[in-house]
Amino acid sequence: MKRRVALTLMIVGLLFGGGALFAQDVSTADTIKLYKQAFDMIWMVMAAALVFFMQAGFAMVETGLTRAKNAGNIIMKNLMDFSAGAIVYWAVGFGLMFGDDSGGLFGTTRFFLAGADPATYRDWMFQVVFAATAATIVSGAMAERTKFTAYLLYSVVVSALIYPIFGHWAWGGGWLGQMGFHDFAGSTVVHSVGGWAALAGAIVLGARKGKYVKVGGKTVVKAIPGHNIPLAALGVFILWFGWYGFNAGSTLSGTDLSIAHVAATTTIAAAAGAVFAMLASWVWFKKPDPSMALNGALAGLVAITAPCAAADPIGALIIGIVAGVLVVLSVEFIDKVLHIDDPVGAISVHAVNGAWGTLAVGLFANPANIDGVSGLFYGGGLHQLGVQAVGVLAAFGWVIATGLILFLVLKATTGLRVDAVEELRGLDVGEHGMEAYSGFQIFTTM
Amino acid sequence: MKRRVALTLMIVGLLFGGGALFAQDVSTADTIKLYKQAFDMIWMVMAAALVFFMQAGFAMVETGLTRAKNAGNIIMKNLMDFSAGAIVYWAVGFGLMFGDDSGGLFGTTRFFLAGADPATYRDWMFQVVFAATAATIVSGAMAERTKFTAYLLYSVVVSALIYPIFGHWAWGGGWLGQMGFHDFAGSTVVHSVGGWAALAGAIVLGARKGKYVKVGGKTVVKAIPGHNIPLAALGVFILWFGWYGFNAGSTLSGTDLSIAHVAATTTIAAAAGAVFAMLASWVWFKKPDPSMALNGALAGLVAITAPCAAADPIGALIIGIVAGVLVVLSVEFIDKVLHIDDPVGAISVHAVNGAWGTLAVGLFANPANIDGVSGLFYGGGLHQLGVQAVGVLAAFGWVIATGLILFLVLKATTGLRVDAVEELRGLDVGEHGMEAYSGFQIFTTM
Amino acid sequence: MKRRVALTLMIVGLLFGGGALFAQDVSTADTIKLYKQAFDMIWMVMAAALVFFMQAGFAMVETGLTRAKNAGNIIMKNLMDFSAGAIVYWAVGFGLMFGDDSGGLFGTTRFFLAGADPATYRDWMFQVVFAATAATIVSGAMAERTKFTAYLLYSVVVSALIYPIFGHWAWGGGWLGQMGFHDFAGSTVVHSVGGWAALAGAIVLGARKGKYVKVGGKTVVKAIPGHNIPLAALGVFILWFGWYGFNAGSTLSGTDLSIAHVAATTTIAAAAGAVFAMLASWVWFKKPDPSMALNGALAGLVAITAPCAAADPIGALIIGIVAGVLVVLSVEFIDKVLHIDDPVGAISVHAVNGAWGTLAVGLFANPANIDGVSGLFYGGGLHQLGVQAVGVLAAFGWVIATGLILFLVLKATTGLRVDAVEELRGLDVGEHGMEAYSGFQIFTTM
Repeated sequence: MKRRVALTLMIVGLLFGGGALFAQDVSTADTIKLYKQAFDMIWMVMAAALVFFMQAGFAMVETGLTRAKNAGNIIMKNLMDFSAGAIVYWAVGFGLMFGDDSGGLFGTTRFFLAGADPATYRDWMFQVVFAATAATIVSGAMAERTKFTAYLLYSVVVSALIYPIFGHWAWGGGWLGQMGFHDFAGSTVVHSVGGWAALAGAIVLGARKGKYVKVGGKTVVKAIPGHNIPLAALGVFILWFGWYGFNAGSTLSGTDLSIAHVAATTTIAAAAGAVFAMLASWVWFKKPDPSMALNGALAGLVAITAPCAAADPIGALIIGIVAGVLVVLSVEFIDKVLHIDDPVGAISVHAVNGAWGTLAVGLFANPANIDGVSGLFYGGGLHQLGVQAVGVLAAFGWVIATGLILFLVLKATTGLRVDAVEELRGLDVGEHGMEAYSGFQIFTTM
Repeated sequence: MKRRVALTLMIVGLLFGGGALFAQDVSTADTIKLYKQAFDMIWMVMAAALVFFMQAGFAMVETGLTRAKNAGNIIMKNLMDFSAGAIVYWAVGFGLMFGDDSGGLFGTTRFFLAGADPATYRDWMFQVVFAATAATIVSGAMAERTKFTAYLLYSVVVSALIYPIFGHWAWGGGWLGQMGFHDFAGSTVVHSVGGWAALAGAIVLGARKGKYVKVGGKTVVKAIPGHNIPLAALGVFILWFGWYGFNAGSTLSGTDLSIAHVAATTTIAAAAGAVFAMLASWVWFKKPDPSMALNGALAGLVAITAPCAAADPIGALIIGIVAGVLVVLSVEFIDKVLHIDDPVGAISVHAVNGAWGTLAVGLFANPANIDGVSGLFYGGGLHQLGVQAVGVLAAFGWVIATGLILFLVLKATTGLRVDAVEELRGLDVGEHGMEAYSGFQIFTTM
Repeated sequence: MKRRVALTLMIVGLLFGGGALFAQDVSTADTIKLYKQAFDMIWMVMAAALVFFMQAGFAMVETGLTRAKNAGNIIMKNLMDFSAGAIVYWAVGFGLMFGDDSGGLFGTTRFFLAGADPATYRDWMFQVVFAATAATIVSGAMAERTKFTAYLLYSVVVSALIYPIFGHWAWGGGWLGQMGFHDFAGSTVVHSVGGWAALAGAIVLGARKGKYVKVGGKTVVKAIPGHNIPLAALGVFILWFGWYGFNAGSTLSGTDLSIAHVAATTTIAAAAGAVFAMLASWVWFKKPDPSMALNGALAGLVAITAPCAAADPIGALIIGIVAGVLVVLSVEFIDKVLHIDDPVGAISVHAVNGAWGTLAVGLFANPANIDGVSGLFYGGGLHQLGVQAVGVLAAFGWVIATGLILFLVLKATTGLRVDAVEELRGLDVGEHGMEAYSGFQIFTTM
């Protein structure tokens, strides 16, 4: 785009060269306009880079919280859901999400970045990393037993269709956005969508071998610990770091002075989530549990994602506290009561806390922050809460329905699950013909 | 803050819409003012995100340089000192540090971010990540033997009181700043404060079992190697990366053109620290030692943190060279002579080199860089060096005194140290009921 | 640089204080000029920080793809090539590359950052991290058998002489740039230069013990798997993340609106490289191979580095697809046919795909993106392709010639290779007197 640069230089040259007063006035206006575009450009691209880096975070969290024998497979899935997802989001997804609206349901233009100008490239860059986040959430709940080919197929469908169509409803000019649904950075649009797809997948797929063992009519629930907690912790720190791009970047403007407000509420909620998940685990298990504390930080981050701009710091604190306790209860409930096997707690972190955070907008939104978005505790009555509930239910309905269809079709065609022998030996050997830790002695745990 | 955005858009609209000339002049001024705020906002929030990421660096360095049986505990401590620390820094610490000054000693307003505007949120966001850095330094020196509850309590006290009050003296309008003390990004304010607290903690806590063994009246010093050097190295790279936010972000202004100068001196000092710590270890141990080289990079970074804006590149080189040699000598002296057990070298890296870097301002500050800050080698005589020495001593006195009180109180009440059996089995099992590397065979080393 | 800040504040003060109309006009122009400098400053320094972080990525990729017994050595080499490299690039390299041109061959000024202004510091900061990238590429191909002292010496020569002189030809005003050679962010200047040096090194050094075994006149090629695939994957994610600084930062301007275009083509090519290397490995080895997929992402990134601003998204897709297939074929060819031992595939990723990406400019450059750079498929005929080929050959010739001389001199003097016993025991013990994973049980594999 050297021509654009040249034009800019010409303008700047005119301006600073001490030309005629008239020229200066004209070029000042043009320069100031260029600067607005530059602010948005560098802010959103840098934020997009941070959000991209969250892929590393997801990969490390999922790898660390599962077993060594499947580590290569998990890495491969995380790399591929971004890579394949980015290509289909370029081809199809972005157009469905942000193209010209058709009936409030989906977009119809901008496929393949047709005729993209700098602003479109900028928006695509920021959105593609969000789409990949939704897809990657699923892999955690379906870890350690899913066929790699089936994984590739469903992650492409999530990035190309399931995520973008819901995204259009909320953010692309669709019916939910028109109702006043407020999801600043995607508690529902990204996290619950990913989380409900994870739920659908985990149900259709079934539990890992040996996870729930029937002993005399009673189900014994076995814990299957992850093989590398420092790696999982690194992943959480990377995710938290990237979340500053995720939430603060969702101002979609480099001159929006609420950027630091968003970063501050994000920090406070994540911190509260970590502390209170630790405390809840301490009460529940008699010891402060690192995995729970790590998931608590993520739960706080997911929950604050919708209300990060609307809530005050005190609201963020309460949202984070609830998220921290909720994630512990939800992990226990899904595992011990529902007997749905979610190796990394993805459903509790992303679906349950995504829903909580979205509803929390209807409770904690201070209209002094965002005009017209007013929660129950800030004099807004039940209106916003109702709208938020509609969004939560719409995400649940759309994703569970399309997700179940998708996974059942895959189960009936390519097959969704590796065979029992491969599962016991590990997917690294079976699916990929390799070992993740060659030269280390690993105990093959069930 | 949609209203603010709307206002901006109105201004920009007026300006570019080709309105009346008068409107254009007014709105140009407002837009230019907004842009200044936007520069500071995006620069400081992005820098704050980088500094936040240093938490991952500290976690990886400390985990890598200690034993596998304590890895989960170290992760947990690093997660919690940031999380609990952020909450108390929001409630209390920021107000004590940057609230309206009382007698040059502490701040008295801005608790709970009361009445925060965008600039306050921005400043809090940048400062909270610094506060967490000070707290997390302590955990390295006290690794592998500290009770988790005691850790939680002292890290809260550091973030809420010890760090902010000293911070007020130097940066918040207090007496040290009034004297002309120059600590650009916190060699003393952050690193020495953390490092002296680490020293106090390590003294009160005592050495790890088996570290110093009395054999026939003589003390034999045993090396206890870390379990994961690649992880420690990753941590150092993350810290170095984050340091560009730490130092260059400390311009506190996105339009300060010294940003790259700061980044360049930071790079040169860190590089020199790594190279010369390696060379020193080569001379001392006959082999170039990776742990020492890694700590040398950190020592260079800590040392350049105060003088990064005031020193020239040649000054940065010398500061880094000294830091690299100093960290090797200091680690050896503290271990072999003083018999103080600092598993990761935190005291040498942060306290000793923080002091060195702070004094180095008084030697290498070129007044051409910062008006009025002039070192001994740049014609400034001994004045600045004297002021710097006062700051170094003030940090030492304040932190050692409050730190010793704090740790002695904890020792007498909750207890500061796990019992011997737990220490031998590892804190992961004892404190948290988990293993960090389930499925890997680990040798339980002393 | 407080004086500069003060000046700015004065200007801003004059402007916003509602001073006389004349003062306002003057200061508006100065402020707008300052803002242009601020955009470039914060964009390039932030991009430089991202590129610095790629050092962590290289360290993790190389460590993960080699054996546990050499992990400490690899870490040390990565730390030192940046550290020693930064110092010599400050002293010598930057001046040779960007100093005043002498005969189109090398620069002659700006050594030691003499008389640096803010723009020079900014440019140095961005360039030093590129120089370090070139040097670090070499270490991968020479891993697990190179003497540490020899490594230090050659990495200094690469950063001080080999890289900067070629860099001058292409980017510093030298003869290649004058011909119209287009390498936006360094497919050739950085990656091929590093990759050809790696080839020269691997040839002079010879293969690892046991890699190519003569059995009855036939050479049996043994695979030596890496010891930590999750770490390698983390490294690839870090590199990809840093590449947004590498490529998008190479606009060298914070107000260039092509930043997002560059980021988008970078994303698409990397994604296509990962997907198609996976598919190629699936066809070739019957299983989708994680190491190949990871190298495919890197190959796509290397290939798009030259054409990232000139190519459209569809071009980026094709460039990435070819890169993904090419890296698999090249790794197999170099290993199975040429019997050159490159433990991490550095030659295939950086040299081969660097050449491919550079040539791809001559095929896919759309002159609508960069005026005057027009590829074969966009009506530009063979001209640009020819110029690109000259650049590719020049890099090959210069680096292979100087590299062979360098490595042969080292072989004849200090020695280039550790002895056989040390190689079998691992370089960590032999070169550094330590273990990377103390407390873990490691199988000593050949």
